[in-house]
This record gives sequence, structure tokens and C-alpha cells, in this order.
Amino acid sequence: MKTIPQTKRTALKRLPKRGVFEQEPVYRILDEGFICHVGFIADGQPFVIPTGYARVDDSIYVHGSQASRMLRNLEKGIDVCLTVTLIDGLVLARSAFHHSMNYRSVVVFGQATLVTEREAKRAALRALSEHMIPGRWDDARQPTEAELKMTSVLRLPLAEASAKVRVGPPLDDDEDYSLNVWAGVVPLKLVAGEPIADPRLQVDVPVPRYAKEYERGK
Amino acid sequence: MKTIPQTKRTALKRLPKRGVFEQEPVYRILDEGFICHVGFIADGQPFVIPTGYARVDDSIYVHGSQASRMLRNLEKGIDVCLTVTLIDGLVLARSAFHHSMNYRSVVVFGQATLVTEREAKRAALRALSEHMIPGRWDDARQPTEAELKMTSVLRLPLAEASAKVRVGPPLDDDEDYSLNVWAGVVPLKLVAGEPIADPRLQVDVPVPRYAKEYERGK
Repeated sequence: MKTIPQTKRTALKRLPKRGVFEQEPVYRILDEGFICHVGFIADGQPFVIPTGYARVDDSIYVHGSQASRMLRNLEKGIDVCLTVTLIDGLVLARSAFHHSMNYRSVVVFGQATLVTEREAKRAALRALSEHMIPGRWDDARQPTEAELKMTSVLRLPLAEASAKVRVGPPLDDDEDYSLNVWAGVVPLKLVAGEPIADPRLQVDVPVPRYAKEYERGK
Repeated sequence: MKTIPQTKRTALKRLPKRGVFEQEPVYRILDEGFICHVGFIADGQPFVIPTGYARVDDSIYVHGSQASRMLRNLEKGIDVCLTVTLIDGLVLARSAFHHSMNYRSVVVFGQATLVTEREAKRAALRALSEHMIPGRWDDARQPTEAELKMTSVLRLPLAEASAKVRVGPPLDDDEDYSLNVWAGVVPLKLVAGEPIADPRLQVDVPVPRYAKEYERGK
């Protein structure tokens, strides 16, 4: 299995058994999530901004308005830490101390670059849309030249990335297993509800299947 | 309604109508979420780490092992950006360009301080547990003195915080409303499944109600 080389930044100081450095499981987490938290430094201050993303091959793409503070900072090529977190459950141990969560998270370090070439930009926007909701792009009215210009797209290489994963039941101290306390996991999942039609919908179009059957991590 | 003063860091440069500076809705978002992304600078690099949290009055508490890189950095009193993001839905517009998400996010800036006093620390740990799953703390085996010592608790004041919120249907360009494209919102929610008992459960305890009926944002 292809691995991603560990660096000082991605190496885990604690609980190293939770670390994942193989490319395939790292990419699988990135493909199930669709919101990342982007950390960067501006005027000496840390900022953490949530935004959508897509993975294509060994790159992460983010996009936004040209006027966005985050994108205007990132396109300077500054250091970025991009984190994706999936919460899978609450882990209820017998002891308060050993309570935990089941989760899968990925941290990516690097510098982003602006995607300027027209067709590469359009392809990245398509990937961002398809990553959020597969099947939608071809149904939607395509971006005009003006809209393309108003949108910034940034590419972050997946050269320095790692995952941290916790799965399974609680781990209690040996002497606590006989306690009269329920222990286990409350599973959590991001679930889609019934699509809500825009009240201004003028046409008689059925709800598309990709909206009705929306599900992450299929 | 009590407002939180805007600062250069919390003021929105774009879409200012999405900004929320009243204390009550900001606190409501913090109370519905339970995972934050903490951004800080170490060795000149930005780091973004997911972790649990709780709000008590005008403070946010986070905790972790004394050995954690994040906590060892934060307890130095460095600048922190703590972000909480709730995803409420995918917003499908007629045009690719106007696709969006419904979300509620809070950003907090400040410096954290270590909670050292024994009873304050215990109270914060109780709050962290009750914030994650109300009702659990009193059922669990309480922390020992050694466990308390191994845990660091940090307090971040909610003095500089703001929310950003998008709700409602897509907003398309006027000329796009007649297009033959379905538009609307796919609602998303973090939902709890059936609790999974620890296979090592030795006692015959029923699943507690707080685990069986777990729900955020009640």
C-alpha cells in the first residue's frame, strides 16, 4: 500500500497507534467528508475557516469569492493546515476518564496555489460540485465567463498528510469492567432529510434522485 | 439583546448580512455543536486540531492529555482561533455558481489559560461530559486524583466571538428562475443510531435513556 512520508508535523506524539499514513484510507476519509477547516496565519493571528473542498488525484481544491479574506491570503502561497473531521460516535466508558469519541480525521499541511488556467479552473469547480453532490453539475446552469472570473480556485497538494482514527468500543481500566455502568458506543452519522423544494420553483421538475437519495460515505 | 463587540478579526468582509454578533444565537450554536477546530501557531506553522468542548457562561473549555501537543502549546497563552461549524443543508440553485450550503458557524479569538484549581477543573470536566452527552457524568465512575492530574483543562473567554449563518432556499439570478432545473435544499443533520453495547459488558444494565434518545439541538 502506498504510504505518505511522515514529517515532524504529521507524526503523532500521543497515541501513535491511531495514526494512519497509508494513502488509500487517508483519501477515503477526504472523499467521505465535504467540509474542511482551513487554518492559516494573517497578521500574525491564526484563522480557522470552514469551507467545502474536493479531492482530485493528489490534490485538494477549495474555492470561493475573489473577495474572500481566506482565499486572498491563501493565494499568496502561505502555510496552510487543512483538517477534515468525521465524527462516528460517542464512546461511553465505565469511567468518566476513558470517555472518548470515534472519529476519522485528516490533516494536510502545505501551500496552496491559484488555479488560473480556464479549463483547469472549470474542471476543479466541477469536481467541487460533484464532490458535494454527485450528479448535480450537469443539471445546473453552467458558469459564465464572468462567474468564472469572480471565483477563485486554489489547489493544495496532498504531499504532507496523515489521518487519525479511533474505532471500536470503550477501553476501560481492568478493575472497572465489573462496575454496574452501561458502556458502549452511540453511533453518529450525518443524514440527509427529505429535499425541500425552493418556494420559487416555477417549473414542474421532479426531485432528482441524487437529492432524494443523498448519502455520504456510500 | 446582548451583543458581542465586533473587532477587526470578527467583522465580515464579505456577505455581512450573514454575520451574527448577538450573544444568544452565538451561544446557541456553541451549545448545539460539540466538536470544535482549534487553530494555533507552533514553530511558525498553523495547526488545526479537532477536539470536544463545552461552553459554561462566557467561557469555552477544552481538555486533553497533559502530553497533547495542542494543550502544551495553548497553555502558553498563545493566540487561538476556535471554530465550530454546524452543517444544515446543501443548497441547490439553478446555476452552478449560486450553489451554497446552509450552515451555522462560530469563530472565537483569544488566549486560553490553564484551569489548575482542583474543584474548578472537576467542574469543567463535568461540563465537558454533560455537554457531549447530558446525564452521563453521574453514571460514570468519577475521576481519581491521578486521572485529574493527567488531564489538562483550558479556558478560553468568549470575549471576541461571532457567528456566520446561512438559512433558506437558493438565491438565483432573476433570469434563471424559469430554467427547467430542480432547486431547493437537501437538509443535513447529525443523527444518532442504536447504541452498540460494549462486547465486554459484564453486567445486565439497560441502555440508558440519554444514550437511546441521544439528539443534538433539542
